[in-house]
Amino acid sequence: MQWKKVGPADAPAYVVVLDAGDEAIATLSDFARREGLSAAQVTAIGAFESATVGWYDRRRQQYRRIAVDEQCEVLSLAGDLALGGDEPQLHVHAVLGLADGSTRGGHLLDGRVWPTLEVIIRESPAELRKTYRPEVGLALIDLAASGS
Amino acid sequence: MQWKKVGPADAPAYVVVLDAGDEAIATLSDFARREGLSAAQVTAIGAFESATVGWYDRRRQQYRRIAVDEQCEVLSLAGDLALGGDEPQLHVHAVLGLADGSTRGGHLLDGRVWPTLEVIIRESPAELRKTYRPEVGLALIDLAASGS
Amino acid sequence: MQWKKVGPADAPAYVVVLDAGDEAIATLSDFARREGLSAAQVTAIGAFESATVGWYDRRRQQYRRIAVDEQCEVLSLAGDLALGGDEPQLHVHAVLGLADGSTRGGHLLDGRVWPTLEVIIRESPAELRKTYRPEVGLALIDLAASGS
Repeated sequence: MQWKKVGPADAPAYVVVLDAGDEAIATLSDFARREGLSAAQVTAIGAFESATVGWYDRRRQQYRRIAVDEQCEVLSLAGDLALGGDEPQLHVHAVLGLADGSTRGGHLLDGRVWPTLEVIIRESPAELRKTYRPEVGLALIDLAASGS
Repeated sequence: MQWKKVGPADAPAYVVVLDAGDEAIATLSDFARREGLSAAQVTAIGAFESATVGWYDRRRQQYRRIAVDEQCEVLSLAGDLALGGDEPQLHVHAVLGLADGSTRGGHLLDGRVWPTLEVIIRESPAELRKTYRPEVGLALIDLAASGS
Repeated sequence: MQWKKVGPADAPAYVVVLDAGDEAIATLSDFARREGLSAAQVTAIGAFESATVGWYDRRRQQYRRIAVDEQCEVLSLAGDLALGGDEPQLHVHAVLGLADGSTRGGHLLDGRVWPTLEVIIRESPAELRKTYRPEVGLALIDLAASGS
């Protein structure tokens, strides 16, 4: 993994390039923790050699796991980063392109990079905080609880 | 719906968080009108409990409506905001993820949020204007007609 | 094709509007060359009357070409621009929406616009360079080789 800070001081961004074999969620979460990011927008393109996406089952209050065990283009990866407790939490969705041009997608649970994943993280000067919502079963961004 | 202005004064952005039950197009259009936005880029992730997407039928000059009447992840929502007459007009496309990981998508006509939709609106300092194009049947962004 | 530079001097962006008949990759590559762009993030929505997307075949080290010979919504177009040698190289992935709401996608090889493609190009103040990687068969962004 390589990274570089770019952009003006009041609206910094990071270019993060993941390598073959990196797991995207763990690698980006570690990066966010090390850099102390508390609010950011995340986008990427590249490819995975395998991934797991999720669809949120509202009745069971958990993600249904969908395995994509094949080389796939990361057509779109979009999401955000906010604080859950004191930890930055990544929330990203992905659309994956298979060999026949059909697509699969969901909440990205994990993705093994091959050969590259080119990520842009745009930091926000404000903090974003998540609050657990028992009626949903998830922590959601809560602007009332977020610092200015 | 909650929102917060973030970012530098010369490149402001809004974090807008929609709640369960909000209809995305109406809620974001109202927000743009109230805030007086005349040019912006819009992105979001989250989930809908139902949505309608459109495919533009060139021969009939109208959108074919495609109903997605099930809980779906909003994998990608991307678009822009420009002035049509004096009103801000939202133009957004969406890719939706179903329970089996397959996807549907189109021009977003409506989307009922559940449990959240996390939206980033990046304002542009320039105005963008749309001009109706009779040969197409749609108003398209026209930079020649847009202010500087 | 029309375009307009917007945004603050230290984080400029371009709104580029392609017309019916323009081929997206050639038009945007020409634009990047003329403007001397060396690092940027690219996003767009709009529609194509035909397109070709690719899936990278790791064993053969080449893209498998997938033709989408029908009017389709450009649901998501995302990517970046970096220098390969002295030339800006565009790397974009696209998700396309068909008449029944199903989707196709891949690495965008070509796309014929109809009626419009609304593109935002956000320039990065840093240079991004690509290095050919023989074990992959592609040039990938290499931050160690990129200027500051």
